[in-house]
Amino acid sequence: MRRKGLVLAVSAAPRTSSGTSDPTTASAPDFGNAVALVCRECGTRVPLGPSFACLECFGPLEIAYEFPEITREQIEAGPANIWRYAPLLPVPADVASRPNLEPGLTKLVRAENLARELGVTGGLYVKDDSGNPTHSFKDRPVSQALEAARAFGFDTLSCSSTGNLAGAVAAAAARAGLKSCVFIPSDLEQAKQVVAAAYGGHLVAIKGNYDDVNRFCTELIGDEIGENWGFVNVNLRPYYAEGSKTLAYEICEQLGWRLPDNLVIPIASGSQLTKIDKGLQDLIKLGLVEEKPYKIFGAQAKGCSPVSTAYKAGHDVIRPVRPDTIVKSLAIGNPADAPYVLDIARRTGGAVEDATDDEVRDAMRLLARTEGIFAETAGGTTLGVTRKLIADGRIDPAEETVVLNTGDGLKTLDAIADTTGATAVIDPTLDSFREAGLA
Amino acid sequence: MRRKGLVLAVSAAPRTSSGTSDPTTASAPDFGNAVALVCRECGTRVPLGPSFACLECFGPLEIAYEFPEITREQIEAGPANIWRYAPLLPVPADVASRPNLEPGLTKLVRAENLARELGVTGGLYVKDDSGNPTHSFKDRPVSQALEAARAFGFDTLSCSSTGNLAGAVAAAAARAGLKSCVFIPSDLEQAKQVVAAAYGGHLVAIKGNYDDVNRFCTELIGDEIGENWGFVNVNLRPYYAEGSKTLAYEICEQLGWRLPDNLVIPIASGSQLTKIDKGLQDLIKLGLVEEKPYKIFGAQAKGCSPVSTAYKAGHDVIRPVRPDTIVKSLAIGNPADAPYVLDIARRTGGAVEDATDDEVRDAMRLLARTEGIFAETAGGTTLGVTRKLIADGRIDPAEETVVLNTGDGLKTLDAIADTTGATAVIDPTLDSFREAGLA
Ligand SMILES: [Zn+2]
Ligand SMILES: [Zn+2]
Repeated sequence: MRRKGLVLAVSAAPRTSSGTSDPTTASAPDFGNAVALVCRECGTRVPLGPSFACLECFGPLEIAYEFPEITREQIEAGPANIWRYAPLLPVPADVASRPNLEPGLTKLVRAENLARELGVTGGLYVKDDSGNPTHSFKDRPVSQALEAARAFGFDTLSCSSTGNLAGAVAAAAARAGLKSCVFIPSDLEQAKQVVAAAYGGHLVAIKGNYDDVNRFCTELIGDEIGENWGFVNVNLRPYYAEGSKTLAYEICEQLGWRLPDNLVIPIASGSQLTKIDKGLQDLIKLGLVEEKPYKIFGAQAKGCSPVSTAYKAGHDVIRPVRPDTIVKSLAIGNPADAPYVLDIARRTGGAVEDATDDEVRDAMRLLARTEGIFAETAGGTTLGVTRKLIADGRIDPAEETVVLNTGDGLKTLDAIADTTGATAVIDPTLDSFREAGLA
Repeated sequence: MRRKGLVLAVSAAPRTSSGTSDPTTASAPDFGNAVALVCRECGTRVPLGPSFACLECFGPLEIAYEFPEITREQIEAGPANIWRYAPLLPVPADVASRPNLEPGLTKLVRAENLARELGVTGGLYVKDDSGNPTHSFKDRPVSQALEAARAFGFDTLSCSSTGNLAGAVAAAAARAGLKSCVFIPSDLEQAKQVVAAAYGGHLVAIKGNYDDVNRFCTELIGDEIGENWGFVNVNLRPYYAEGSKTLAYEICEQLGWRLPDNLVIPIASGSQLTKIDKGLQDLIKLGLVEEKPYKIFGAQAKGCSPVSTAYKAGHDVIRPVRPDTIVKSLAIGNPADAPYVLDIARRTGGAVEDATDDEVRDAMRLLARTEGIFAETAGGTTLGVTRKLIADGRIDPAEETVVLNTGDGLKTLDAIADTTGATAVIDPTLDSFREAGLA
């Protein structure tokens, strides 16, 4: 039995993505300017493959590139989605021509009303990733995992998920013509199950909690069942994670090829924040933006704030927590990238802060009322934290700040349903309207 | 008492939108290349104002333009939203610089998997308007009504709605810094109320049905309460309706400045279909696309199909019906633009057809499974009808066809909740997974 799915560091000869099904014609997959996987901890370098952890030290593997010279004009001439940055991603040059959801290039909204309310004078922007095809930033990393799955000849795209990711994977697989099989805890709310199931792949409900689901997925990868399966956030994780770099690229390009002064980013596993930092560094190294100091701030929900707690205590590592918050998409009690997040926040002069559930709801309403953007609870978390950082001066209101909204309020209606509804219920008469005292 | 809101044909001196609140400095509002309102029935011409019906014959008023020469290059150099077409809309030239939701330029998806399933060889596209800021096409017409409200100095944006429109109006007003007050029937599902209320304007629930809500709104427009109110689909309707022309512009530009052979468009009031036809005619007249025959097909839900019924019976006018369908966003039993829709379908060689609720659900699943697009029930209606038209040869599969998806499946989860869910519920063991027989 060849267990292709479970590879720590060195891949078995990967199958070709050339469209032929004859494995004897296999050649090295085309990952563009990506050249190797490198251990983030010990620097060990291994060939590109469906590998996710270092054989030497079990550290996480990351993509290493050899970038050619790339100009702003080349990027600007590309498609109006993340594939304009294909040379900076682990994908072949012609990736834009394959059927895929084409995420990215979401709006960077200049939030003038919000800036006024918060007293920001240096410019305030919301990077609104609810505009992605399945309405969360997850379409970005999934798009990279999908291309890796194609390159390795996997026929099924898979993941464990409690929400946004399940739909993003099922949708991406559908458009690409791959099979999908996504795993959820069986007690997931029905509405979320409907969304994940709508795309027609297999949606498998596991009797157990999210940890049980994850444990089961690891078993599957090691079994022959999972031999041709790409788990986007497990054996394809190094590729998957790179998708978040595109947020950095887009923000800087949309600012006119400039770095902002401050970025506020939500923390779930912490991967997104670390990859945005990596993306900013890419742009500096390539000379696409002028180097200058920038601060990166991390945002957590109070009910799941191990990184914020460690930051405040001056610790380098976190103590895992049991999540208890309305912000389900950030409810990871043991975030894998926490040490890197703490390092980046400290190194750049940023911070990690948290917002209570009430502050999250308030911030969701604030953003909707001032800018017409209806954010997911994660967006409320980021803005709630931003508000706090501005109020106590850790973010200078005279500086330029970009706040991430990573998902859509339609996906977390439950969180505000009890506190959001009709202003008045009246009879259909002018007198009844007058009595309501609204006008 | 000056009843500014209720004007049939000739507006009282409109207030300026220049930002000053002194009415003595009022000047004519700037509507770009729009020059007058013209009665669609009798051709009577009146000045641009908050007017919606002809004083002579009570026919609907439409915007008339005097277009200068406009090139493809000028449009392509514009912003990546509907404002690239500002010269073709009733808005000032600098409209893109004002805070607004910037809808439009949604994806035109080449649906290769879907084409294969339906046997289409000539090219099949889905224009996916779920990508708009509030995830339905309504952001397009609302954007035009908003600019008209600004031009007339209204301070409150309003509408009656049973769904998408309420959120679109509240969101647009929030970003623009206008007040909003939207009216819904009090028995509207809670989830829809939450979405509409999220943007923080007034959401007023009327004890009564949708007809009661509409009647009440007409009363409001005639009362001093509504003096400074713009009802997007009543006194601002001529402007509002123009927003749907941008769908025609975008489809042709995204095809490479070409007309498609066939367009399939859902029918609610019928306004969208007639305006898309008007938009295609604009492009032909301006020489932006080469003239050639195109067919326009209208799609209704069987449970609310007065136009389809009239089409099949060879009638020029419809008999109103009481809607009974899961497709709530198309449930208008007495569509105002039905005669125009019938005329366009017949004149272009198209047709009007309907799909049952089951066919709608099937088509929603088909689109999600083949293209990763999760459509609202209205999108399922359009695709369900398209499928029927291809099957019986009224749409030639060798021709190029564009199908509209006007909204997002997240908004109509109820319609498929009973029939969409987990493929299997299993224990977290490989044996249990094998027994489920999925792999
Ligand atoms: Zn290592
Ligand atoms: Zn008339």
